[in-house]
Amino acid sequence: MNLKGYLSAKKKIVDSKLDKYMPKETEYPQIIHEAVRYSVFSGGKRLRPILMLAAGEIFLQEERILLPAACAIELIHNYSLVHDDLPAMDNDEYRRGRLTSHKKFGEDIAILAGDALLTIAFEILSEEVKDSKLALRVINLISKAIGTFGMIGGQVVDISWDKDKAELPELEFVCTHKTGALIAVSLRIGAVLSGATKREEEALYEYGKLIGIAFQVKDDILDEKLDREKGFNYPAFLGIEESKKRAEDLINKALVKLDGFGKRADILRQIAKFIIKRKE
Amino acid sequence: MNLKGYLSAKKKIVDSKLDKYMPKETEYPQIIHEAVRYSVFSGGKRLRPILMLAAGEIFLQEERILLPAACAIELIHNYSLVHDDLPAMDNDEYRRGRLTSHKKFGEDIAILAGDALLTIAFEILSEEVKDSKLALRVINLISKAIGTFGMIGGQVVDISWDKDKAELPELEFVCTHKTGALIAVSLRIGAVLSGATKREEEALYEYGKLIGIAFQVKDDILDEKLDREKGFNYPAFLGIEESKKRAEDLINKALVKLDGFGKRADILRQIAKFIIKRKE
Repeated sequence: MNLKGYLSAKKKIVDSKLDKYMPKETEYPQIIHEAVRYSVFSGGKRLRPILMLAAGEIFLQEERILLPAACAIELIHNYSLVHDDLPAMDNDEYRRGRLTSHKKFGEDIAILAGDALLTIAFEILSEEVKDSKLALRVINLISKAIGTFGMIGGQVVDISWDKDKAELPELEFVCTHKTGALIAVSLRIGAVLSGATKREEEALYEYGKLIGIAFQVKDDILDEKLDREKGFNYPAFLGIEESKKRAEDLINKALVKLDGFGKRADILRQIAKFIIKRKE
Repeated sequence: MNLKGYLSAKKKIVDSKLDKYMPKETEYPQIIHEAVRYSVFSGGKRLRPILMLAAGEIFLQEERILLPAACAIELIHNYSLVHDDLPAMDNDEYRRGRLTSHKKFGEDIAILAGDALLTIAFEILSEEVKDSKLALRVINLISKAIGTFGMIGGQVVDISWDKDKAELPELEFVCTHKTGALIAVSLRIGAVLSGATKREEEALYEYGKLIGIAFQVKDDILDEKLDREKGFNYPAFLGIEESKKRAEDLINKALVKLDGFGKRADILRQIAKFIIKRKE
């Protein structure tokens, strides 16, 4: 299967569903709806929802069952980006080649847009996932993955690290929590919503954790080549060559987790390999 | 029944449950857990959870059934306060006589603490409300009440108003959305979790909407007496005397909504009257 074609087809499906779920820009108060749409429709790769859909394909689950949760995960990812970009956090002016939300709409609206994206995610989960018990389980898994013991915890450590004292364990904590938790839970939910066994769910979750860290290590390598963001990253601790080896090692371990799934997991295998091959 | 005693007894119960639900300050990363606890345990009146519990008493519902949602609502209220206080929003340095979260912990941690409070609220709702269908309904009602067509929408209009052009309808929008939506949904959820009929649920929801506006009008009157916050408030549009009349009128309408509930709604009647009598 052609990975590029697969990613672009799935991105279209996710984008179209997101468009249906998101309030229109003409609805009052317009500025907040402009702001949430501005961030969501800004050329993201939709990696997390696509991973969820690809996990569902292993079990031949219908896509429509997975799409609400896939969209919710993407909104949560975007909420985290909007808040991370704020002046009080990373103070980024551009993302994906466009002004960040607070540069475009002001800091107050950007804070509220992030809040709104998180809130809409839970609204979708509570309304569109049809099986009540599964919906609740998904809401619980997500709220744990993005809370103070997950994504928020990772961001806290990321902004609080002391340049003179930070060690590899802190970096690994940030990496597994800030980036890894949401990626891993996307795969887990793909399994949960497809009626996977506990064992299958666990294997996909582990695969997700491993590719999540590899994704961050690769990001750090690409950033290092662009001479950005010196300091608290893998190349700074391990050097470029050792970081590359680490990323490859993580991907190999991730591939092993897919061993029980046969050919239907080929897309997940290709995505794993793509994570370390990508040039941007 | 003695209202003061009732409020203080219920506050204790809510506080004790909140303490059980909130992560300990010793848990890593400590600073975020200190920050969320700092905001939640800062002398709040617990009005919203108490309203929910009082609604449940009409139907003789067991308190333990209502407490998880009551605590979640209080966490959401606190998330909204932490974000509203931020420099980019109201830029408040003190709340309830103590430094605001961003003055105490820094703006970055305050943003994340707000995010965390919202996230923990959904975690509690998905884990502690035992009936799956009701839990989902409650999550849906809350996410709508606090989204861009509810509380966030109210805050957006509040920060975007144009001093020269704002009219009473905008103020009423802010009031019903920013303050009113969360109060109203608290009462509605009290009914939903107690197996109330649609009609009873609607009556309590309407009562909640009316006391929510009255609460804000009274707040504006108290602020005006302290010579704070001139401008976008009821006394500025209506004058003090007319504002007082408006608040009384709203409370009288709210009391009518309770007519079908007999003596078991006496606490809600007393709370309604207290809202316009209070001196702070």
